[in-house]
Amino acid sequence: MRFNTRKWVKPEDLNANGTLFGGRLLSWIDEEAVLYSIIQLENKRVVTKYMSEINFLSTAEAGDIVEIGIEVVRFGTSSLTLKCEARNKMTQESIVTVDQLIMVNLNEAGKATPHGKTQIEYVTDRLAREGGEASKKS
Amino acid sequence: MRFNTRKWVKPEDLNANGTLFGGRLLSWIDEEAVLYSIIQLENKRVVTKYMSEINFLSTAEAGDIVEIGIEVVRFGTSSLTLKCEARNKMTQESIVTVDQLIMVNLNEAGKATPHGKTQIEYVTDRLAREGGEASKKS
Amino acid sequence: MRFNTRKWVKPEDLNANGTLFGGRLLSWIDEEAVLYSIIQLENKRVVTKYMSEINFLSTAEAGDIVEIGIEVVRFGTSSLTLKCEARNKMTQESIVTVDQLIMVNLNEAGKATPHGKTQIEYVTDRLAREGGEASKKS
Amino acid sequence: MRFNTRKWVKPEDLNANGTLFGGRLLSWIDEEAVLYSIIQLENKRVVTKYMSEINFLSTAEAGDIVEIGIEVVRFGTSSLTLKCEARNKMTQESIVTVDQLIMVNLNEAGKATPHGKTQIEYVTDRLAREGGEASKKS
Amino acid sequence: MRFNTRKWVKPEDLNANGTLFGGRLLSWIDEEAVLYSIIQLENKRVVTKYMSEINFLSTAEAGDIVEIGIEVVRFGTSSLTLKCEARNKMTQESIVTVDQLIMVNLNEAGKATPHGKTQIEYVTDRLAREGGEASKKS
Amino acid sequence: MRFNTRKWVKPEDLNANGTLFGGRLLSWIDEEAVLYSIIQLENKRVVTKYMSEINFLSTAEAGDIVEIGIEVVRFGTSSLTLKCEARNKMTQESIVTVDQLIMVNLNEAGKATPHGKTQIEYVTDRLAREGGEASKKS
Repeated sequence: MRFNTRKWVKPEDLNANGTLFGGRLLSWIDEEAVLYSIIQLENKRVVTKYMSEINFLSTAEAGDIVEIGIEVVRFGTSSLTLKCEARNKMTQESIVTVDQLIMVNLNEAGKATPHGKTQIEYVTDRLAREGGEASKKS
Repeated sequence: MRFNTRKWVKPEDLNANGTLFGGRLLSWIDEEAVLYSIIQLENKRVVTKYMSEINFLSTAEAGDIVEIGIEVVRFGTSSLTLKCEARNKMTQESIVTVDQLIMVNLNEAGKATPHGKTQIEYVTDRLAREGGEASKKS
Repeated sequence: MRFNTRKWVKPEDLNANGTLFGGRLLSWIDEEAVLYSIIQLENKRVVTKYMSEINFLSTAEAGDIVEIGIEVVRFGTSSLTLKCEARNKMTQESIVTVDQLIMVNLNEAGKATPHGKTQIEYVTDRLAREGGEASKKS
Repeated sequence: MRFNTRKWVKPEDLNANGTLFGGRLLSWIDEEAVLYSIIQLENKRVVTKYMSEINFLSTAEAGDIVEIGIEVVRFGTSSLTLKCEARNKMTQESIVTVDQLIMVNLNEAGKATPHGKTQIEYVTDRLAREGGEASKKS
Repeated sequence: MRFNTRKWVKPEDLNANGTLFGGRLLSWIDEEAVLYSIIQLENKRVVTKYMSEINFLSTAEAGDIVEIGIEVVRFGTSSLTLKCEARNKMTQESIVTVDQLIMVNLNEAGKATPHGKTQIEYVTDRLAREGGEASKKS
Repeated sequence: MRFNTRKWVKPEDLNANGTLFGGRLLSWIDEEAVLYSIIQLENKRVVTKYMSEINFLSTAEAGDIVEIGIEVVRFGTSSLTLKCEARNKMTQESIVTVDQLIMVNLNEAGKATPHGKTQIEYVTDRLAREGGEASKKS
C-alpha cells in the first residue's frame, strides 16, 4: 500500500472529547479514494458507491500526523475497487482500515460507464508516453 | 426509525461534480450516531467503534434537504448498536443506509465502561422523573 | 413546537471563551428555518426576510447537544412566518428563542411569488396522495 | 458608523440559491460585534446577550465585497449596546441593519461584571498614554 | 497603511499548538489583498500573482483580534502592487508583513488586461460622481 | 522532491472566480511544511518562521488534484529549511513554488531550541531501530 496523503490534526478536526472526530476521518478517506480514482481512471467524474465495514482501531490527537494509503484491489469494467488505511505517521499504528471501496466511473450524464483501464498507471509514464507520441508526430 | 436531524445541502457540501460529497454525508451520519448515543447513554464520552458496510444508493444536490434517522439495534454492556439511514426529505428516497454502528461508552480515562442502560429513554421522561424525585424529597 | 434537528457542539463551533459561538448558533437557526420552509412550500428558492429580536438565554459547551425547533406562526400569500427555539437537548434549557422569522417564497427571477399553501403538510401524506393519484391514473 | 471589516463572498458562503447565506452573514455580524466590544472593554470575555430585529434588505453574490460597520449606542455598567450594518462595499447598498446588539462583559467565572468604560477609546491613544506613563515612571 | 479588516481568533483558527495557524493567516492576507484590488480596479476578476517574502514576527492566541492593513505600492498597467501587514489590534504588535503582493486584473477569458486605474479611489467619491452625472442627465 | 500529500479541489476551495483560492493553497503549503517538520524533528511544536517569495504560476479548478511536495534545503541548529512545490497531479504543471520555508523547533515554553537532527530520517527506519533496541533489551 502506498501512502500518498498526510493530514495534520488541528483543533477544527476534533470531536468534543478532544480526539480526532471519526466523521472527519471518514471524509478524508473518501476524498483520498476519489482522488486516487480520478488519477487512475483519468476522469473527474468518479463517485464512491460502496464502502465495506469500518473498524476504528485507535484514534489521534491534535498535533498528530495521519497518513492515508490506498491499494488497488480490482479493476472492474466501470468500477475500481480500492483498499484504504489511515494510520498514525509517527507510530505507524493503524487508525482505520477499509477493505473495499467501490468507486464508479461516470459519464457526463452521471451514468456508470466503462473506463477501459486494467492496471495501475503512473502519471509520469503517461506524460512520457504522450510526449513520445507527440515527438513522433512532429 | 426516527429522523431527528435535517441538513440543507449547500455549496460547501458538494464535491467537484456538484453533487453531495460522500465524505460530508459520512461525517453527518457519524455525528448523528454519536449525539444519539450521548443522549441515550447520558455520557458525553462516546466514540464510534465500528460501522458496517455502506451503500451509496443515490445522491443529493444543492438545495436538497437530507434527513438522518437512527434506530437502536441492541444495548450491549458498554456499547450501543445503532442502525442509520440518510434520505432525501422531499422524495423519501434513501441515500445511504448503515445497518450497524457500534458506539462505545468511555470513562474519563478513555476506556470502555458499562453504561447501565438497557432500553431507549426519552429526555422528557427522565426530567419528569427527576422532577418527581426532587419533589418527593422536599 | 417540533424539534427536527440536532447538533453536536464541537471545538469548531466554539468562540474564544470555549462556549458556543453565537454566530454559529444563528447560522444553525437560519438554516433550519430555510429548510423547514423549503419542505412546506415545496420550493427550493426560499430566503429569510426578517428575524424578530433574539435573546441569548444561556449557552452551550463542547459535547452538548443542541436541538432546534420550528413552529408555524402564519401562512401569508408569498411568505411563511415561523417561530424558532434552540435548546439544550439534555436539560431542555432554552438557549435562544426567536418569535418571528419571516421567510419569503421566490420565483426563478428571485422575486416574491405566491406559494399557494395555507397549512402545514407532511411529506408522507403528500407522497401517499401522489401515489394514490398515480395509481388512479393507471 | 465606522466600517472596520470587509468580507469577500466566496462559494463557501453561499446558500443553495447561489446568494449569500443569511446564516453566514449573521455569523459575520456577531463576530464583528464581539471583537469590537473586546477592543472597547479591554476584556476578551464578552458575549452577545441580545440582538434587536433583523431586516434582510438585499443580498450579495459570489465576488461581492461586504463591509460591516459598528456604532456605539450606549455604555451600560456591565454592558455595551451597539448598532450594526452590513452593506455592499461597491454600491453602498444596505444588506442588513441591526439597531441594537447588547454585549455583556463577563468576569472569569462567566458572570456579568462592570467594565468601567464610559466612552469610545482608540487603541493608539491607549498605547500612547501607557507609553507616557511608562516614561514618567522611568 | 489603512487597516480595513479585523478577525477574531477562534478555536477553528488554531494550529495544534494552540496558536494561530500560519496558513489561516496567509489565507486572511490573500483574501484582503484580493478584495482591496477588486474595490480599486472595479473588477471582480482579480488574482494574486506574486507575494514577496513573509516574516512571521509574532503569533496570536484564541480571543486575540488581528487587523489586516493594505497600502498601495504601485499601479501597473494590468497589475496593482500592494503592501500588507497583519498585527495584533490590542498591542499593535506586528504579526506578519509582506512588502509586495502583485495582483493581476483579468478579463472574462482569464487573461491579464489593462485596468485603466492610476490612483487610489474611494467608493463614496465614485458614487457621488456617478450620482452627479446621473442628475445632469435627468 | 517527494510529493507526499494530495488534495481534491472542491467548491469550498474556490474563489469567486471559480478557480482555486490562493489563500487556500498557501494554507495547504504551510500545513505540509509543518507536518513534514514534525516528522523530521520528532517534535509537535514546530512553527513557520519565514517563507521566501511565492510565484503563482498557474491555477486549478474544481475536480483537479493538487499534490504538494517538500524537499529539505538545510538542517540548522534549531531550524529546518524546506523547499515546497504545489503542482497539478495530472499535468505535472507547477502551480506554486516556494524556495525557502524556515521552520523553527520550539520547546514547551515556546522558545526556539536545538533539535539535534542533521539529516533526513524515515519513520520506518526509526521504528526498526527502536524495535532492535527493544529486542536487545529483552
